[in-house]
Amino acid sequence: MVKYWGKDNVVWQDKMVEIDFPHVIHAQQFSLDDLEKLFMLTAILKQQIGKGKKKDWLNGNIVLNLIYEPSTRTMTSFSVAGLRLGADVITPADPAKLSSVIKGETLEDSIRIYADKVDVIILRHKDDDSALRASRSRFCQGVPIINAGAGKGQHPTQSLLDYFTIRERFGRIEGLIVAICGDLKHGRTSRSLAYLLSKYKGVEIYFVAPQVAQMSPDVLDYLTSHNVKWHQSETLKEVISFVDVCYMTRFQTEREDPEEKEIMAHASMVNVIDEQLAESMKDDAIIMHPLPRIHEIKWGVDKNKRSVYFLQALNGDYIRMALLLCILNPDKVEKLLASAA
Amino acid sequence: MVKYWGKDNVVWQDKMVEIDFPHVIHAQQFSLDDLEKLFMLTAILKQQIGKGKKKDWLNGNIVLNLIYEPSTRTMTSFSVAGLRLGADVITPADPAKLSSVIKGETLEDSIRIYADKVDVIILRHKDDDSALRASRSRFCQGVPIINAGAGKGQHPTQSLLDYFTIRERFGRIEGLIVAICGDLKHGRTSRSLAYLLSKYKGVEIYFVAPQVAQMSPDVLDYLTSHNVKWHQSETLKEVISFVDVCYMTRFQTEREDPEEKEIMAHASMVNVIDEQLAESMKDDAIIMHPLPRIHEIKWGVDKNKRSVYFLQALNGDYIRMALLLCILNPDKVEKLLASAA
Amino acid sequence: MVKYWGKDNVVWQDKMVEIDFPHVIHAQQFSLDDLEKLFMLTAILKQQIGKGKKKDWLNGNIVLNLIYEPSTRTMTSFSVAGLRLGADVITPADPAKLSSVIKGETLEDSIRIYADKVDVIILRHKDDDSALRASRSRFCQGVPIINAGAGKGQHPTQSLLDYFTIRERFGRIEGLIVAICGDLKHGRTSRSLAYLLSKYKGVEIYFVAPQVAQMSPDVLDYLTSHNVKWHQSETLKEVISFVDVCYMTRFQTEREDPEEKEIMAHASMVNVIDEQLAESMKDDAIIMHPLPRIHEIKWGVDKNKRSVYFLQALNGDYIRMALLLCILNPDKVEKLLASAA
Repeated sequence: MVKYWGKDNVVWQDKMVEIDFPHVIHAQQFSLDDLEKLFMLTAILKQQIGKGKKKDWLNGNIVLNLIYEPSTRTMTSFSVAGLRLGADVITPADPAKLSSVIKGETLEDSIRIYADKVDVIILRHKDDDSALRASRSRFCQGVPIINAGAGKGQHPTQSLLDYFTIRERFGRIEGLIVAICGDLKHGRTSRSLAYLLSKYKGVEIYFVAPQVAQMSPDVLDYLTSHNVKWHQSETLKEVISFVDVCYMTRFQTEREDPEEKEIMAHASMVNVIDEQLAESMKDDAIIMHPLPRIHEIKWGVDKNKRSVYFLQALNGDYIRMALLLCILNPDKVEKLLASAA
Repeated sequence: MVKYWGKDNVVWQDKMVEIDFPHVIHAQQFSLDDLEKLFMLTAILKQQIGKGKKKDWLNGNIVLNLIYEPSTRTMTSFSVAGLRLGADVITPADPAKLSSVIKGETLEDSIRIYADKVDVIILRHKDDDSALRASRSRFCQGVPIINAGAGKGQHPTQSLLDYFTIRERFGRIEGLIVAICGDLKHGRTSRSLAYLLSKYKGVEIYFVAPQVAQMSPDVLDYLTSHNVKWHQSETLKEVISFVDVCYMTRFQTEREDPEEKEIMAHASMVNVIDEQLAESMKDDAIIMHPLPRIHEIKWGVDKNKRSVYFLQALNGDYIRMALLLCILNPDKVEKLLASAA
Repeated sequence: MVKYWGKDNVVWQDKMVEIDFPHVIHAQQFSLDDLEKLFMLTAILKQQIGKGKKKDWLNGNIVLNLIYEPSTRTMTSFSVAGLRLGADVITPADPAKLSSVIKGETLEDSIRIYADKVDVIILRHKDDDSALRASRSRFCQGVPIINAGAGKGQHPTQSLLDYFTIRERFGRIEGLIVAICGDLKHGRTSRSLAYLLSKYKGVEIYFVAPQVAQMSPDVLDYLTSHNVKWHQSETLKEVISFVDVCYMTRFQTEREDPEEKEIMAHASMVNVIDEQLAESMKDDAIIMHPLPRIHEIKWGVDKNKRSVYFLQALNGDYIRMALLLCILNPDKVEKLLASAA
């Protein structure tokens, strides 16, 4: 089987464990070379597959969407990816309300049962280490797990589609100036983005949030130790004119502390991209958002050429196709890459 | 692309807007010629496709059931229609409970995201103008929307299957005498039926309901202005012997006013079709019901040759197949119609 | 159509009625000869179909999972069975919350509507006689019903997979000593197992449970009248060393009577299979469980060669494939059996 992503090591339950291929557990397990190949494959798929099109490259395979936390969008994206490649897809409705789960069955037992039946499991679960736990179960060796969102932790396919979209527009990630705006303290997307950007030379990051919602020190220290230049800012207006990428996320105003709540409410009103602000950006800059957006970006901005948030969602389908193909039909991957070379 | 239904204009948000092809938003957008062709196609599909049969005419297409309001029956019917024609079908469970919706995402944003991924969206939503809004979003031009029930408003595939069923039995709609019985004030099926019948010459309608549940004046005025003869009646018994079609619907007894509640309860007991009443109908008359029925029609009536309510449900599959085929593979439609001519 | 299971008679609504082919309503409808052929077919399918594999033997058929009670596992198993054989599968989310059901539609009406649309209905419903009622409806003759769990009553595919697993391991069922442990009074699996074991000569059964949870007298009388040796025991330890099969089920500790509750809690602590107990079993004995298990079997036992509970779950897919194939493509069944002879 081809290996499009390297093994990685993480501390889990107080010991160092390996992220095993072909599970897709966290975005960091991909080396720059891995990413380069994965993005090349994604671009090829995007050229060849679209509306009304279906390939037979995954015929005979069953994709199981095991989605314990509501996530119609991610589920639909994986379903589209599987179906357009010829796989079948099974999506149980609300497995979290399963009688077996209510009775107290462990995640490991649940996974174990499905492991024998299907060809790949897409897992979304409230526990931060759910995908890792599932993949490390001795009994799950027979089935690859793709992490589709683990609690407040990793959501690697979201990170990969973000990267792919940046790279697709700029042809590179090195040297870009990126603003990340929103509730950075609680946003898993923001954390993942910061970690992954640190792999590229010359990237400079502006974290835009009030102090109560600023990026955690562990991420900032990590960036410093990897020689990534970073800055903090309170408002978008200070940075919008010179960044290449403005990555917006939601300001989560649900806070217990009334003072914090007020600060967040204020920040969510101040840090809104409207048409005027969008036009003040560099000509080739892009505005990103993991969606859903509420009012962080005004509807009028959608038609601005800098807006790529709906494109991100579409790119997600192709990233997921690429991963499924790498896992289930690596020979086809080799052929596609060779013919494109 | 073939055009099997005309454009129509409606007043929406205080201005006149166009129902755009190939969206299917309301039943009135179909001209009599459109209907004639659509029904011919439906009849052809009914002959060629049945149990154990599947065509490849929609291969490569993905149908998305975006069903915000519970509606297993309509969802299943669209799924059967898509699958028997070779399409793939994705049905998210309960999108109304989606985190994105709960967070406040607009319908337009949701549709926009799915518009890029799939080939047609079946939309059922609590808002009366949901399908129209979705279809008019500038960003949804890439994906046809089929209205599968919009709040208390339109449910065009239900209307079309009703029409097809009448036409299938009588070979015509002109000149028929139709009784519509039930809670006409709140029933969207009854309203749609009345509007569509007005397109045909010589149709005569009897609205059977107590005054508190009678058809709204706007519909009655519309009929008068289109020279359709209509009458009001309190009980089925007065009209059952001479009508060609008896269209039953449920009496909704959930009323706040205690007097109205009593009137409705009485009406629901009086206006029941039992075996004796069914036999008192004209020999070739038919009994229709959009289902589910509760006790408006006794079980014993099911075996009466006049009962066509289960046939209506089956015809719904073929009407939906016909619409999907017109939208996604118009060339095949031309060939089927030509070979049948 | 081939007939792989005999007709059976049951008392229903105070009269004797026939279980009609090709409905699959209860496990007892299968004669020993039926079972022999069904298991042979299951074994053939298990050899030929696995991960990444799909046959076209059910192309054009639609399987409808009509699952009124939460049951992701059974639903997934039927879906895998249908998809791997080439069928399409439709699974409405939570039909029990259907507006039609809430409005008061009968099960018969619901089934009637789907009967025309799909090729086989998998029914799980809270009523003990649901599958029988559905299959006996005059209007459902057009669609086979497979009972996927009827209230506290039958769950025939679970029984069949249990049998298949025993037979697969031992090559026979005759003469085996079987312990059935758990809340036997309320467990439908335990009842079904006991009934079916009575078909085989020389089987001896040990019912392991405290008196308040012991097997009902009707089952015990039935066994006695069929010359099956049975015994009652309070703890697993008394019997574990000499049984061939130890069938574990959950101890349901939800009791109103506080004394009973305590007895059950005690029983659930005492009757646990740990690694030591597993090792004390005969060398070729097997440990079974319908799953989910909570703590009746320790995780460490999973790697013991005697543990077959996850294998049971997998075998369920093949039993269900075999049933679907017998119902929808009997010609293929004949060919498969002939080529294996």
